Amino acid sequence: MRSSRPTTTTTSTSPSSAVTVAVDANGADLGPGEVARGAAAAARDGVRVLLFGPIGEVEPAEGVEVVDAPVSIAKVADPVPAARTTPEASIVQAVKAVAAGRADALVSGGSTGAALAAGLFEIKRARGIYRPALAVLVPVPGAPFLLLDAGANVAVRPEHLVQFAHMGAAFSELVLGVARPRVVLLSNGHEPDRGPEVVVAAHRALAERAGAIDFVGNVEGFAIGQGMADVIVADGYAGNVALKVMEGTTAALFEAVRSAAMSTTRSKAGGALLRPALRALRDELDPQEQGGAFLLGLRRLGVVPHGSFGARGFQRAIELAARGVREDLVARTHDRLSEVGAARGREASAAVASVPEP
Amino acid sequence: MRSSRPTTTTTSTSPSSAVTVAVDANGADLGPGEVARGAAAAARDGVRVLLFGPIGEVEPAEGVEVVDAPVSIAKVADPVPAARTTPEASIVQAVKAVAAGRADALVSGGSTGAALAAGLFEIKRARGIYRPALAVLVPVPGAPFLLLDAGANVAVRPEHLVQFAHMGAAFSELVLGVARPRVVLLSNGHEPDRGPEVVVAAHRALAERAGAIDFVGNVEGFAIGQGMADVIVADGYAGNVALKVMEGTTAALFEAVRSAAMSTTRSKAGGALLRPALRALRDELDPQEQGGAFLLGLRRLGVVPHGSFGARGFQRAIELAARGVREDLVARTHDRLSEVGAARGREASAAVASVPEP
Repeated sequence: MRSSRPTTTTTSTSPSSAVTVAVDANGADLGPGEVARGAAAAARDGVRVLLFGPIGEVEPAEGVEVVDAPVSIAKVADPVPAARTTPEASIVQAVKAVAAGRADALVSGGSTGAALAAGLFEIKRARGIYRPALAVLVPVPGAPFLLLDAGANVAVRPEHLVQFAHMGAAFSELVLGVARPRVVLLSNGHEPDRGPEVVVAAHRALAERAGAIDFVGNVEGFAIGQGMADVIVADGYAGNVALKVMEGTTAALFEAVRSAAMSTTRSKAGGALLRPALRALRDELDPQEQGGAFLLGLRRLGVVPHGSFGARGFQRAIELAARGVREDLVARTHDRLSEVGAARGREASAAVASVPEP
Repeated sequence: MRSSRPTTTTTSTSPSSAVTVAVDANGADLGPGEVARGAAAAARDGVRVLLFGPIGEVEPAEGVEVVDAPVSIAKVADPVPAARTTPEASIVQAVKAVAAGRADALVSGGSTGAALAAGLFEIKRARGIYRPALAVLVPVPGAPFLLLDAGANVAVRPEHLVQFAHMGAAFSELVLGVARPRVVLLSNGHEPDRGPEVVVAAHRALAERAGAIDFVGNVEGFAIGQGMADVIVADGYAGNVALKVMEGTTAALFEAVRSAAMSTTRSKAGGALLRPALRALRDELDPQEQGGAFLLGLRRLGVVPHGSFGARGFQRAIELAARGVREDLVARTHDRLSEVGAARGREASAAVASVPEP
């Protein structure tokens, strides 16, 4: 069933073998220096980095070209309009470098909204894609999964959900290394006819022509943490609700466990003994520690590590972005969509044609 | 702002002062006898009970009239069609007793879907209501809240969400005793313009004319467990996803805490000491232990305690149902909707007129 990769549709890799990733150094909580250290580590592993940030705050390193971009919109109240009106912002410059072909992928630890807005505006959507989506890697003990859309598209049509399924599966397999990702639709019942019309129609389309993906069916919210799926697909409203309810529940539960451990002398003693194990669990589960977001469906891959990440987190984000380029994620996603007749047609070609070429 | 209750619109209380609750004794995990014991306790507190179940399995009690109804559809695979095709089923008989005016409210520990289907079919929606909704009382430590719709309406219009807000607030205040319930809309951002169009439009309508309710605005999924709201309003798809993600996350976390407590000798000792406190927390949080569902927007109130409840849980459910009758929940909800111009108009009167009167 799986298609071999037709070379004729391969358009997104750079001609040289070295991959270049544009990195926005502003936005990380630990400062641009920390991002630069992550970039230097990725460069030692063979990725070229174009780093946009305040030149005085980053150490020079082999394989890292620094572009002085001291202006940050990572912490502004409303980053989406800021991305449009602040061309000198580091995130906007990084995105433009990708759009212009000077880099093959984007990494930014700043606002996801700003990265998405700038990415949509500058990089544009990929050929055959209706709507780019925001995918989030959700850390659940023993059962991590990719959730998309996490908030970019609050209203969708069935063909959008079908594309999200393929975009998520291709990313999971090619970039995250999941052998045959199990893909599900989030619904309010596991039966194929349960859920909003758009989910029912997407289910039907995926069941009829799943192509390269292993479409398992609908799952309810219970599936979270049960390891039933590698990729969970929803519209951006339900996906965002699911993600944040999970975070809110996790935080409330850890607080409740802490209170329970303070409630009696006996439980206090137990809590003290258990603390190291619980702290490790908490770190493992906290989406702010482990999570990352990915902009899928643009002409180039975007990776948005959490602002709290240190050098190693940024290094990993840069290497994931490079892996997406080397694996030709964008073109191969397109091939898979074409194979099942789920690629966007004529309009898409027109949209791509209007993108200024480097 | 709050309206006094106009007596002219009071239509839902029975003429005598005693309230009668129809109770389906099938469906409880502990058997009809346990439900009957709950009914007997409620009867001692002054509620008349019409109990539908296998007459041989229930003890007679003062104030409880037993109707022999041994047929149960509580555990069938697809209870919704079963409710239509099994007139002898105890749930259907109980619902019909309410529809015919022989009882003022319904309690069933069986399938929520069957109760909702039978309720819609027999009891019909209340005057001025577009769509009945399923409300669930969610036990979060220190921050319990009512969530609606939990799955009855997967596609809604703004006026439906507005009605859910009023239905939930009236129930929270009049039946659960929350003094001035804070009502929020579940969205993917707290800003009034964030979220699906239907949420944005409902937000606008509620902000303009909230009437008796304290409309706080939009919340994200993070709000779960933070005590930010007494009533959380969503369509039945997102509401169901939120509820089940919360349950799935809770189950996964307790399992992870258990594993963490088994990971080292030190943590094992801690886990043993902490166990009683954690068990109490788990019981407090488990929606299957504490939760209950309510059918709002029908001409009579329906309460669906969880099947795992014992006699005390059924007693409480029966007393909540009776309280809804005494507080004239249905009529007062209608008054509040009328006050803000959110009641359904002409069609609603026609719908009510078509309901066979006792």
